[in-house]
Amino acid sequence: MDLDFSKIDGLLPAVVQDQATGEVLMVAFMNQEAWEKTLETGEAHYWSRSRDVLWHKGSTSGHVQKVREVWVDCDADTVLLKVEQVGRAACHTGHVSCFHRRLDEKGEPVTVGRPVFDPKKVYGK
Amino acid sequence: MDLDFSKIDGLLPAVVQDQATGEVLMVAFMNQEAWEKTLETGEAHYWSRSRDVLWHKGSTSGHVQKVREVWVDCDADTVLLKVEQVGRAACHTGHVSCFHRRLDEKGEPVTVGRPVFDPKKVYGK
Repeated sequence: MDLDFSKIDGLLPAVVQDQATGEVLMVAFMNQEAWEKTLETGEAHYWSRSRDVLWHKGSTSGHVQKVREVWVDCDADTVLLKVEQVGRAACHTGHVSCFHRRLDEKGEPVTVGRPVFDPKKVYGK
Repeated sequence: MDLDFSKIDGLLPAVVQDQATGEVLMVAFMNQEAWEKTLETGEAHYWSRSRDVLWHKGSTSGHVQKVREVWVDCDADTVLLKVEQVGRAACHTGHVSCFHRRLDEKGEPVTVGRPVFDPKKVYGK
């Protein structure tokens, strides 16, 4: 189906949810090419806004996202991927979810949980 | 805490998840004002990209989103709200979630579930 990539300079947000647990793992951005590669390969591809390149998530770490379900919103300008996250953690910090900081009652971020891998070992940095 | 609104012309995406069920309800965008209003009031505020106005979700329909948890991602450029959705449905179509279309094996959208309210009655259109 056709998506609306016009609202953010050729990009749209993709929400990534763990299919088994329902945990929201991350949000990334797709252009048309990333969208097509994701559907073709069954593995999540995004457009990296920081590096300006097509990004096959997990190509460095091995922690690819196997796409089990694809959902499209009412305006066709956002997608929801339900995935199997290889290596369990989606975040480059080693946390399961990029959303691992919760605001406390004062509005200050508190890190919840611990990394499940050591980024230095996975990324060799 | 300070968020990074610089990547999308002063906006950042907010993922909205039903706190009770874990269902992803919608994605909307916030500017600094919407973010502050959300924290101040405990009800979700966004920036409407189509109408170019601050948008207190539910101000027309009564279906506000009571924010129970606020999470921030690793780059501080995306937030996750866990909410109690008054009226149960977040989508203007009357569906619980804006993500009510799933792609089938041919990549075609299939609507899953039925609206829980009649938009004509709620919005008077």
